[in-house]
Order: sequence, then C-alpha cells, then structure tokens
Amino acid sequence: MELTNHQIRLAARPEGLPKPSDWEHTSEPVPDPGDGELVAQVLLVSLDPAMRGWMNEGRSYIPPVGIGEVMRAGAVARVIASKHPGFAEGDHVFGLFGAQEYAVSNGSGIQKVDPAQAPLPTYLGALGMTGMTAYFGLLDVGELEEGETVVVSGAAGAVGSVVGQIAKLKGCRVVGIAGGEEKCRWVVEELGFDGAIDYKAGDVARGLREHAPDGVDVYFDNVGGEILDAVLTRLSRGARVVICGAISQYNESAPRGLSNYLSLLVSRARMEGFVVFDFQKRYPEAAAELGGWIAEGKLKTREDVVSGGIEAFPDTLLKLFWGENVGKLVLEVADGSTPAG
Amino acid sequence: MELTNHQIRLAARPEGLPKPSDWEHTSEPVPDPGDGELVAQVLLVSLDPAMRGWMNEGRSYIPPVGIGEVMRAGAVARVIASKHPGFAEGDHVFGLFGAQEYAVSNGSGIQKVDPAQAPLPTYLGALGMTGMTAYFGLLDVGELEEGETVVVSGAAGAVGSVVGQIAKLKGCRVVGIAGGEEKCRWVVEELGFDGAIDYKAGDVARGLREHAPDGVDVYFDNVGGEILDAVLTRLSRGARVVICGAISQYNESAPRGLSNYLSLLVSRARMEGFVVFDFQKRYPEAAAELGGWIAEGKLKTREDVVSGGIEAFPDTLLKLFWGENVGKLVLEVADGSTPAG
Repeated sequence: MELTNHQIRLAARPEGLPKPSDWEHTSEPVPDPGDGELVAQVLLVSLDPAMRGWMNEGRSYIPPVGIGEVMRAGAVARVIASKHPGFAEGDHVFGLFGAQEYAVSNGSGIQKVDPAQAPLPTYLGALGMTGMTAYFGLLDVGELEEGETVVVSGAAGAVGSVVGQIAKLKGCRVVGIAGGEEKCRWVVEELGFDGAIDYKAGDVARGLREHAPDGVDVYFDNVGGEILDAVLTRLSRGARVVICGAISQYNESAPRGLSNYLSLLVSRARMEGFVVFDFQKRYPEAAAELGGWIAEGKLKTREDVVSGGIEAFPDTLLKLFWGENVGKLVLEVADGSTPAG
Repeated sequence: MELTNHQIRLAARPEGLPKPSDWEHTSEPVPDPGDGELVAQVLLVSLDPAMRGWMNEGRSYIPPVGIGEVMRAGAVARVIASKHPGFAEGDHVFGLFGAQEYAVSNGSGIQKVDPAQAPLPTYLGALGMTGMTAYFGLLDVGELEEGETVVVSGAAGAVGSVVGQIAKLKGCRVVGIAGGEEKCRWVVEELGFDGAIDYKAGDVARGLREHAPDGVDVYFDNVGGEILDAVLTRLSRGARVVICGAISQYNESAPRGLSNYLSLLVSRARMEGFVVFDFQKRYPEAAAELGGWIAEGKLKTREDVVSGGIEAFPDTLLKLFWGENVGKLVLEVADGSTPAG
C-alpha cells in the first residue's frame, strides 16, 4: 500500500474550549495488516460532548487520551485489507478508530454494520452509541413508566432527540429543552414532543410550570448547570434525574455548583449517573428495538454530517459546544461510496 | 382541671439561625378532653434539624408551621385524662404533640410506648423517628450490602450514631465524620466505628483517602455543603449517596452549590433523598430489629437530655446547629416520674 494516514493528535490539555494549539496534525504511512489484523479506512467520525472529558487529566470512567496520542473517537470505517478471519475487505465496521484516516485493528471491540439496513451515519447516531445512551439511560437508569412526564435537555442534540422519541413511543408526555426557536420547533413538529422550552428565550422554570404543571417524573440531563438546577425545583415525588452529561460545564475550569440538590429530599427523588459502556452486553437488545422503530418510521434519525476531511475535526468538535448541530454531529472523512487506493 | 399549658409558637419566619423574636411564648388553660379525645402531659420534646425547614415558607414534604401556631415537635407524653377508648390515664404515648406542656389529641398518629421496655428518651432516639430514619435510610434507600464501606456525616448526632452502628451490625466497614476530637473518639471507642474524620481538624478528602482508600460505597449524609462535596470525589463505582439532611445549609439564605455532582456519572452512582414518614407502615419491622439490638446490648443509645422546661425550647434547638449535642437531643418538659396536677 502507498497510503498516507492523516491523524489528529492531542498536543496539550485544553483549558476551556480546545484551541488549535491543543491539537497536532500528523501523517504516517498506512501499514499492512499483520496476522489477525485488519486495516480500515475511516469514513465517518463521531463527535461527542464526552470527548472534552477524555482530553482532561484525572480519574474518570475511562483513561484520558494521552498527550501525543491520536484523539479517541468512535467511527465507521471500511475494511480495506484483512488478515483477520472475522473481517473481509469491503466490510463496514464500527469501532473506536480515532480521529484519523486509517486504523489498524485486531478486531477487538469492533463490530460490523450493514449499509443496506441503514445509512452509515445512523450507525454513529440512533443505531450507535448515541442510541444506546438514550435507550439505556432513559429506560434502565430512568426506570421510565408509561404515562409519566419526561423532560430532556439538549433535546435537539444527538442523544436528546432520541430520548424524547423513545419516551413518546413508551407512552409518556415529553418536554424538550433546547436553545433557539428552530430547534424547539423541530422537536415538536418533526419529532412529536409535546412541548419545548427555549432556554435562550426565557425562564426555564417558568417553561416547566407551563409545560409540566404536575412536575417532572424523569429528567434526562445532557447539559448540567443552571438548567439542571431549574428542573430540580420541579421534580415530582419519586422522580429520577438521569445524569448523562453536562455539556454546559465541560469547558469551565470551576463547574457551577448545584444549588437545589435538596429538592431530592423534598421530592424523595434520585439523581443517578451512568456510562453507556456498562450496558455493552445488552447493546443487541437496544439495537433490535431501535432498528425496528426506525424501519417502521416511528423513530426519526437525523445526522448533521460535516465534510472537510479529518483536518476539520478540531473545528467540527467546537460546533457541539456552540450548540450549532441539530441531531447527531458526524464528520465525513472519506466518501463511503468510493473505495480507497 | 386547673392546669395551664405553656406553649412555644412560631412568631416569624427566621432568616438564618432562629432568634428569640422568632418565637412567641403563650399560655392557655388545658381543656378537658371531648368525646374520643385524650389530654396528655408532654414529658420530653424531640429536637430535630428538620425543624428548621418546617419554619420556612414554601413547598416541602410537609406544610410549614404557620405563623402563630405551636411549633411542631415530636414528643413523649403521658395521658392524664382520656375519653378515647384506646388510651387510658397513665399511658405513655409518642406523637407530634408540639412544643407545649399539654396536648389534646383524637388519637390519630399517636402510639403507645412502654417505659418498662426502654427509657422514655429512647423513644425519641433509637426507638423513635431517629432510629427509623437511620434504619430505612441506610438499608432501604442506601441498599447496604455486607462488606461495603459506609461513611456517615453527623456521626455523633442522633441519626448518624445509629446509622454507623447498624452498618457495623450488618457487617460493613464504617467511617464517621464529626466535628471535634471528643465526638470522633466516642464513635470509634464507644460505638465501634472503624475510623472517624474530624472535619474541624483538617481535610475531609484526605481523611477519606486514609480511612476509605478503596472508595465509599454508601454515604449517609446529614450535613450537606463542603463535606458532601468532598465525599462525592471519593465514591466507588455504583455508590449510593443517601440525602437525609443538610444541617450545614438550613440556616443559609443561599445554599452552597454542589460542585462535584458529576462524580455521580464517573462513578455510576446515585444520590437519593428520602423522608422517613414514607416508611410509616414498616416502622414496626424497624422497631423490632432495633429493639432487639438494644436489648442485646449491640446498639448503644445515647440521649442528650436538657432540662429547663418548655421555655428552654428555643435555646435548646440552637444546640443542634452549633453542633453541641452528642447523641439525640431531647428537652425535658416535665419529670416523667411525677404525675401532673
């Protein structure tokens, strides 16, 4: 092979929003696969708020990305060479291939995806980690029950938009919190949410009194900060607050303290964090149900696919923190319809 | 009857610590009981951190005490006159009789206690709401399992001292957090805790690294504030944080925000509030187990009984917030051995 692999590596631990000097752009030849290995060309890279946490030093649910390492990223790729018995040239696969154009893998932790079943970007969205996160967070951690009132923040984002739709499919009343009129209109008119609160336009607590007058039974939180504090004051008795993420806080050096946690006592409520990787054994169960809904047209998927190749990774990541994406943010690294080489 | 009932009524909603002008001292004649009623002489009044919350306006798990009303308080009393078929003169009873010397009751919500089984103050402590709170909070909300590491704040207080002992009886490692060397020594030497951290003497996080090096499985929180924030950084995977109270915050106009709640995500942990009244149907179950332990000498009870009569109620309440009590704080209103009249 005469292929060159362009890569985005972590150059420094960012303070606040990652800046250009926090990244290093490198290139190296793509090696041939060894025995038991495959080489895959990355087609689509997932952009996730959690990535910001992976760039920090310190104890977390997963080790930090090391300085000088290729940035960790989920990706859909196509096998271009294989000496692995389980994978053949032309197979499409999902794995943590990283922010680079090619990846060598021994097959561990990767799985095949079928472009005939769903468009490839959907394997990073509703059929990927995004969908798994929404599914297990809402149903298992949130212990959702039919007829309950569900509020989800980041409602127009990758996870939030799936959470709200699953809650509707399970017979719940759903209120989304999102930034801007367009996002709010989308979740109500296109996704079927019962209501939406534009946090940029006004008071979230007032919106909750209007849209969830009897209180919030399940709050699925993607944003943290002030919005979480506002929802805490509106919990119904026995409510569950699912802590999925806190995108408003990831770039803050001193996170904003949560003032209203004692509402958990008054409401006999609980707040619980989770990490989707813990549900790995049950991914097939979620994928089957999510895939069924997608096939029946009951679950709408939307990916915000940005072009520009791997070089565009640093700038594309920032779109998440600026709230610019609607649906799942994906970077197209190579055209899936054109084989490499 | 020619008896006078001295009462402590709420005169104003306090800002910060309740001050003398927030109370009104009143007196009125003790009426005769009507049909189906009893009159009881209050012997012992319970002092509880939760009382501070009852004095505030606003939504909570129980309506606030109204301005001009007798202050709500659990108490042990002796029936001095009865036209109620279930209670006879001389019976000892527990109920929310309030901060006053005599109470009229139709019997609802009160229960007999037996001074032959345990000293009367114990019915406000380990065999009363205090014991119920410790028992259900630790075992039901905390879902304690044998072999786990339990940390409890307010460890030398009424609830904390029982929580730690129950955890030891259930085969756990127990670390208490308390203010001052004397309290720390008491929970270790007298109650059998495995360790204690004096939050007044140093860094709680460092104490936790030393005493709970493998992380905290269950944290039973009575204090809130900085100590809760410190423990959040030391949770083990799947930990449960039981929010029983937040005595450090009750007199603050703006509660201190919780900075480290995202540890719940990293640790896949949950934080849950509860109110002991929700477990009312199961009180007999807890009373049986707690009573058995007390009888066998396995659970040590300690009450800090203050004399001074009902007039001393306002000052005695402040001892809680100043951290002056060890064990259950009780105000003696009348001598249990001398019948009234």
